Amino acid sequence: MQPRADVSPVRRRPAPPDLLQVLGERFGERFSTGDSDRQRHGRDDSPYDTTPPDCVVFAASVEEVAEVVRLCARHRVPIIAYGAGTSIEGHIMAVEGGVTVDLSRMNRVVALNAEDLTATVEAGVTRKQLNAALEGSGLFFSVDPGADATLGGMAATRASGSAAVRYGTMRENVVGLKVVTADGAVIRTGGRAKKSSAGYDLTRIFVGSEGTLGIITEVTVRLYPQPEAVSAAVCAFPDVAGAVDTVIRTIQRGVPIARAEVLDALSVAAVNRYSLTDLQERPTLFLEFHGTVSSVAEQAEAVQVVAREHGGLDFEWAIDPAARARLWDARHSAFPAILQLRPAARAFVTDACVPISRLAGCIAATIEETRTSSLMCPILGHVGDGNFHCIILADPNNPSEMAEAEQLNQRVMRRALESEGTCTGEHGVGMHKIPLLAEEFGEAGVDLMRRLKAAWDPLNILNPGKIVSMW
Amino acid sequence: MQPRADVSPVRRRPAPPDLLQVLGERFGERFSTGDSDRQRHGRDDSPYDTTPPDCVVFAASVEEVAEVVRLCARHRVPIIAYGAGTSIEGHIMAVEGGVTVDLSRMNRVVALNAEDLTATVEAGVTRKQLNAALEGSGLFFSVDPGADATLGGMAATRASGSAAVRYGTMRENVVGLKVVTADGAVIRTGGRAKKSSAGYDLTRIFVGSEGTLGIITEVTVRLYPQPEAVSAAVCAFPDVAGAVDTVIRTIQRGVPIARAEVLDALSVAAVNRYSLTDLQERPTLFLEFHGTVSSVAEQAEAVQVVAREHGGLDFEWAIDPAARARLWDARHSAFPAILQLRPAARAFVTDACVPISRLAGCIAATIEETRTSSLMCPILGHVGDGNFHCIILADPNNPSEMAEAEQLNQRVMRRALESEGTCTGEHGVGMHKIPLLAEEFGEAGVDLMRRLKAAWDPLNILNPGKIVSMW
Repeated sequence: MQPRADVSPVRRRPAPPDLLQVLGERFGERFSTGDSDRQRHGRDDSPYDTTPPDCVVFAASVEEVAEVVRLCARHRVPIIAYGAGTSIEGHIMAVEGGVTVDLSRMNRVVALNAEDLTATVEAGVTRKQLNAALEGSGLFFSVDPGADATLGGMAATRASGSAAVRYGTMRENVVGLKVVTADGAVIRTGGRAKKSSAGYDLTRIFVGSEGTLGIITEVTVRLYPQPEAVSAAVCAFPDVAGAVDTVIRTIQRGVPIARAEVLDALSVAAVNRYSLTDLQERPTLFLEFHGTVSSVAEQAEAVQVVAREHGGLDFEWAIDPAARARLWDARHSAFPAILQLRPAARAFVTDACVPISRLAGCIAATIEETRTSSLMCPILGHVGDGNFHCIILADPNNPSEMAEAEQLNQRVMRRALESEGTCTGEHGVGMHKIPLLAEEFGEAGVDLMRRLKAAWDPLNILNPGKIVSMW
Repeated sequence: MQPRADVSPVRRRPAPPDLLQVLGERFGERFSTGDSDRQRHGRDDSPYDTTPPDCVVFAASVEEVAEVVRLCARHRVPIIAYGAGTSIEGHIMAVEGGVTVDLSRMNRVVALNAEDLTATVEAGVTRKQLNAALEGSGLFFSVDPGADATLGGMAATRASGSAAVRYGTMRENVVGLKVVTADGAVIRTGGRAKKSSAGYDLTRIFVGSEGTLGIITEVTVRLYPQPEAVSAAVCAFPDVAGAVDTVIRTIQRGVPIARAEVLDALSVAAVNRYSLTDLQERPTLFLEFHGTVSSVAEQAEAVQVVAREHGGLDFEWAIDPAARARLWDARHSAFPAILQLRPAARAFVTDACVPISRLAGCIAATIEETRTSSLMCPILGHVGDGNFHCIILADPNNPSEMAEAEQLNQRVMRRALESEGTCTGEHGVGMHKIPLLAEEFGEAGVDLMRRLKAAWDPLNILNPGKIVSMW
């Protein structure tokens, strides 16, 4: 499926030969116009066709990023930041051509401030790299999207994950950023204090800006002390509704669940096959509790009472760290597992997020709709946040399947908007949700976004064609 | 002390007679040019001289606010939003003249969505009004600045309070806003979903924008289930450092304290006199624990162990709700209590916020400095957030006292910046911290703020002279 021209009008602005020459001389082996490098950087986990940049620069420092931005500004050529390429909304696609700056080699942990519960890392550090660096410190970083994304990419898409219900998303967990602006200046968006009322919230403006307002080169995040006790469990249910309602009622009673993920029977089957687990192939809750020994026991008891009221079967516990790690690895691998259900297909991942009282209804209506679809559509979700994904698998060589998948995606998004929710809880706008933003915020709201973009990136060189349409 | 012209250059833009006439005809008894109304709306809890607007409109709806904004835009006259007037940074001062729109009559609770743990209120609802409306629901709203501020004002200044250490500030607790923009359009910044990746974070851009980017007319906030058990305690210490270190060590161990406030001996004496309490007049921690019965007991035990290591004396407990309410009323009244120490004085309230590992050092250096000052300077703080206030009392008729107070304030702010902190943790920028922002974010960062302001308010009519200097 091509990026649709009607969605975000684009102007091809390829990097001219003299820009390519200057970049090549400056960056040597860290510059590439090779087909494989370009193809790899023009493809993410979205269902859209590869859209490669004209060249790739592997940056090693913030100064180098600023240098590339200034060169692109001089030539009015797009520049696209690239982390791990795990976006599922086409964020990294070079729809107007231009230069991709790959930040994955900027992967130093700059500072661990254990006493302040913060870490500062270069943008290319991945969430697993950060947690590995924290081993032995008694601290952890909480945001865990399925993929091993980079912290820069996670900040840029306002990512979340399974622990957001307790610890928040990147919105709550980014303390400050170092950013290269469209004119190649380097700014810091804040210090390391836990809170601040110092002017416009630059940090929160860049978090979720998808590379369109600046290029994030360094991220300071909050850390949390490892809880004294952790236990995890899975619990099967006769239907998805029972699993969803169990989480919602538990949260409404104030039980601070650390993780609460629902998978439908098809997702569980995919996980079993991919991760060699032997979970019952029914709608299933994956739960985790953090706290002291006694508070974890209390939380677990409270959830079990609610689960029984909603038809939940027995809890299977994973107490020791290895068993828990296997369980959550299986959950985090659900996306590749589901892709393996139909290896030649591409996935449209819906990302509706609604107030929790509306979640069960939204999921039920989505399930009803998928029953009449010819496509495989497993469902899973971060229930505690009101966020669920329907992963629609379609054959990219079959236009009617691709169209059906897109229609289904559109209906899920519209239902979210009708339910006082959002079309994207954690994946971002990319190219294809631009029209939805006008429904979500109104034309006046989108106009503010467009004016912000024009004020901060007047040449529209920073990842053009994403979030807002400027042409 | 006059608002200093060197800080934020202003251009007087008084409301012309024809604008006053149109407003008078349109709003009748809800329009005033009377001296007492104008004086009252030109004065907050800052140390600066009254700076009245040319008139006051008491708005009753978002449509009326939009109407006033459009009229002001047509005449290029400033418009200043006013809630409860409890700002301590001069936010509501009409430094260029213009129209103040008083939102205090917009005090309806629009919706209580108990199942979703959200409430939507008009901007003029105060935090106490909201919590009164929540009585019997089993829910509460957590953000509690000392004053009974309006939710609109709290959102506009990114306010926090004693419970932010556990529940976050307005940054984390505003779910969405209704806002009138500079051209009189009405927008919604988001739905009611707990999280969102839908484009630029309009909600977080308006939170903390101090009325300079739009006028907030409706606020949707997060609510929390009342914990099963609550207990509060006070604990005296031989010195402030012991009290501060106790909180920091406790947080670093992951104990989820709900409130942790430190008052120095002078603040406690002021509170005793004002609230008729009989606390020991020593540096004192005010603590509160939320959770189940057993987890509250565990938290309390954990803190007591740490407190003893830091010289803490016995805990005095306030278990029953009435005793707790008395304790926190006393704490929330600390500001008026301190003002009573020297009734003719005005207060310069410093608002440094630093990483918690730097807090003890910053407070110690500040205490050292106040020792050599001729002024009374009680200190209190939201220790868990790294935020403390030194309340410097100076005679407004004594220029050397006022200058000394301002110098002390400046030194506290600079020390915060040197400690990777911020010059304002929760009070905002107003007029007098504008030069500090350039130190905190650099010229390039302030330039982004200025470009945002120019893009969204090209006529500079929204609360001009605050946060950024546009002339």
